[in-house]
Amino acid sequence: MLAMRIVSGLLALALTSASFGADRYSDFTDRVRVTGLSRLGAFSLLKELTTDVGPRLSGSDGAEKAVAWGQATMTRLGFQNVRLVPCMVPHWVRGNTETLIATDKYGSFPLTVCALGTSPGTPAEGVTGEVIEVQTLKEVAALGERAKGKIIFYNRPFEKTTVSGFAPYGMAGDQRFAGPAAAAKVGAIAAITRSLTAAEDDVPHTGTTRDPGIPCAALSVVAANKLSAALKNGSVSVNLKLSCQTLPDVPSASVVGEIVGSEFPNEVIVMGGHLDSWDKGTGAHDDGAGVVHALEALSVLKDSGFRPKRTIRVVLFMNEEISGTGADAYFEYAKNSGEKCVAAIESDSGGFAPRAFSTDYKRLKRLDRWVPTLSTFEIERLKPGGGGADVGPLAKIGAVLFGLEPESQRYFDYHHSDKDTLDKVHPRELELGALAMATLAWLISEEGL
Amino acid sequence: MLAMRIVSGLLALALTSASFGADRYSDFTDRVRVTGLSRLGAFSLLKELTTDVGPRLSGSDGAEKAVAWGQATMTRLGFQNVRLVPCMVPHWVRGNTETLIATDKYGSFPLTVCALGTSPGTPAEGVTGEVIEVQTLKEVAALGERAKGKIIFYNRPFEKTTVSGFAPYGMAGDQRFAGPAAAAKVGAIAAITRSLTAAEDDVPHTGTTRDPGIPCAALSVVAANKLSAALKNGSVSVNLKLSCQTLPDVPSASVVGEIVGSEFPNEVIVMGGHLDSWDKGTGAHDDGAGVVHALEALSVLKDSGFRPKRTIRVVLFMNEEISGTGADAYFEYAKNSGEKCVAAIESDSGGFAPRAFSTDYKRLKRLDRWVPTLSTFEIERLKPGGGGADVGPLAKIGAVLFGLEPESQRYFDYHHSDKDTLDKVHPRELELGALAMATLAWLISEEGL
Repeated sequence: MLAMRIVSGLLALALTSASFGADRYSDFTDRVRVTGLSRLGAFSLLKELTTDVGPRLSGSDGAEKAVAWGQATMTRLGFQNVRLVPCMVPHWVRGNTETLIATDKYGSFPLTVCALGTSPGTPAEGVTGEVIEVQTLKEVAALGERAKGKIIFYNRPFEKTTVSGFAPYGMAGDQRFAGPAAAAKVGAIAAITRSLTAAEDDVPHTGTTRDPGIPCAALSVVAANKLSAALKNGSVSVNLKLSCQTLPDVPSASVVGEIVGSEFPNEVIVMGGHLDSWDKGTGAHDDGAGVVHALEALSVLKDSGFRPKRTIRVVLFMNEEISGTGADAYFEYAKNSGEKCVAAIESDSGGFAPRAFSTDYKRLKRLDRWVPTLSTFEIERLKPGGGGADVGPLAKIGAVLFGLEPESQRYFDYHHSDKDTLDKVHPRELELGALAMATLAWLISEEGL
Repeated sequence: MLAMRIVSGLLALALTSASFGADRYSDFTDRVRVTGLSRLGAFSLLKELTTDVGPRLSGSDGAEKAVAWGQATMTRLGFQNVRLVPCMVPHWVRGNTETLIATDKYGSFPLTVCALGTSPGTPAEGVTGEVIEVQTLKEVAALGERAKGKIIFYNRPFEKTTVSGFAPYGMAGDQRFAGPAAAAKVGAIAAITRSLTAAEDDVPHTGTTRDPGIPCAALSVVAANKLSAALKNGSVSVNLKLSCQTLPDVPSASVVGEIVGSEFPNEVIVMGGHLDSWDKGTGAHDDGAGVVHALEALSVLKDSGFRPKRTIRVVLFMNEEISGTGADAYFEYAKNSGEKCVAAIESDSGGFAPRAFSTDYKRLKRLDRWVPTLSTFEIERLKPGGGGADVGPLAKIGAVLFGLEPESQRYFDYHHSDKDTLDKVHPRELELGALAMATLAWLISEEGL
């Protein structure tokens, strides 16, 4: 690409400037745009969270460091009423051992695994059993007695043919989330699951599983493909060793701070993401991005000289990944606060370039009037959907939920794995998400819902 | 992010499927979606082009290898009438030496540079002179006599506050494109230019410059910042050594292939990108992506069992980067062909997730009816703009121009540098661009313009 673009670049700029003028919010979007894109504050905050704090699994020292960082950061950014909303959280620890050795008629070979969150550990010598490969939980139920003493291998791949990068997670997710419990129910001694990703590499992706009862681990996609290939040649047994364990629950907290509304201080707009992460990688996209989106959104708004009519509050939720106790505790807090939670905007889909906000289907048409303003920061549409796991409960007290939907293709390449690190986040893409969130919060604050 | 998403993933899928059914092109989009996303053919082709062929600067052996690859690939994909449209191209070679040593009152230090395309070389001992830092070409003109014997250092940075990732290239581009000639005009002995990128690293970005007359090179952003800092402490002289040279023009060609229209074979829809690249990196985004977008678009359409009413033609243009002789030669060819070129779609903005097509401002409203169909592949809108440097001339024979506009934030991090390599391209994002292009070509083929 060369010179022609230089001319069209200038043309596009002229057109953009012209369209700014037509919008009653152009002063707002101009000022937050200049403040945000000049400093790229979201990325600086994410660097702190992923580098100074690091991984922050609920119950870990890292999570407590993250709580302290959240408080200190909100105070430094000049937020009001910085406080904690306490909750109890599980305390699951991975330990140092997670290995899987497969043995077929030609010999033994190691395969890359990691324990699923909440999995019990194995005895020191591991659990050993014959592998049964399945695609669905239904197949497992149908195995009945034949599953007894076996190790169930869920190998349904990420669907390739959906355009959305998120849809395949929904389609394959039950294997991880409910598969181990289903295997335990028919007497399997362990469950291993193909990682929930389209990326063909040797990196396993962890994540929570519900009441597994038996040891369970995720195989990298390469490991799953190798194991499946070996099974084509006859029976395969595996030895799985996991040193993970669940310790007693510990107290933790979500972190809250705000700018109090000038006209309707009792009407609250929540913006948030979750402060905890998995212990793999540093949770840069999941959900460091959401944390810094919300922090930077409120900070940019403030530093651009705007004071909202309604209270805009940042909530950094604890323990989204395992059992949502932070969201539950915040819901109880909000319900009993005497305030009205008018809206809650969640970012938990990564720090890529923003594309849409999801919200209540019934409101889409009415709120479409905001799209031209939101399009300043690359939000092209409102689409049907909810907010996310953390803001979900707030619907019960009347909050309208919104979810930030960034570009989706790369998210599950990194999600819940060692690859979810700062270098996968683009500073400008991340900042645009924060500015989009600031703009939506401002529109709600100005006009109500 | 955890379980809530699994549910909303399934919901989104259901909604998507429902909306497919409402579109008269749903059979088309369903079939090309499944064909394309199952095989990710664009990425396989890009791997061949960047790995087996490699860099392919006009006039180089690599460019001739690319022409042969283009012909062989079109033939292998089953295109009709595979042929070359010859053109003459410049033959500029970089050589092995490109160094810059700066000397200030504290000593000497090296700075990372690379020659700008078409720059003359320096004598073996280099050119040495005092540096004058400027921001604009106007400043240089105003220097007059004071520029004589000096080395002009253009240091206007990429504008940070535009949302578009492309706009800053338009705003800063004259420094590279016309800056050296402007410096030569007032008697400077060399020109050095801050790289056209927002990425703060030590990698220089090359690119063409018009009739420079004097040796000229791009500094990495880090080098430009260091030089500018040194100038704050007093005068700095630099020694620039470049071994680049311009050899006589050589013959080359653009590569053409098509599927002949079943009803209107004489009406042609061109899809294309440029086959040449810079000699830095392997031109994966610029414009390997455009080349494989067009190849895969036609191939997917064919392999999904569709035969267009109008002729859909892929043109892989030679020599976009230096002087556009491939585009000029194809224009002459098309003008004299007796065919009617109804539309030309260019992809020369990278292989990131598609977001829009640009086209003639006057047609936007009428063509908006296509957006719901195009949105299957993440095209949310048609926006005002042209096609690109290669298809531009075809407007003169009545073609309506379109440009594929992918997500823009990362493009100039890599552009024209050693970083523009295959690992920066996401296979699914790239494929979606090809499928968007296939869909637009199909809509034009079915309905005309």
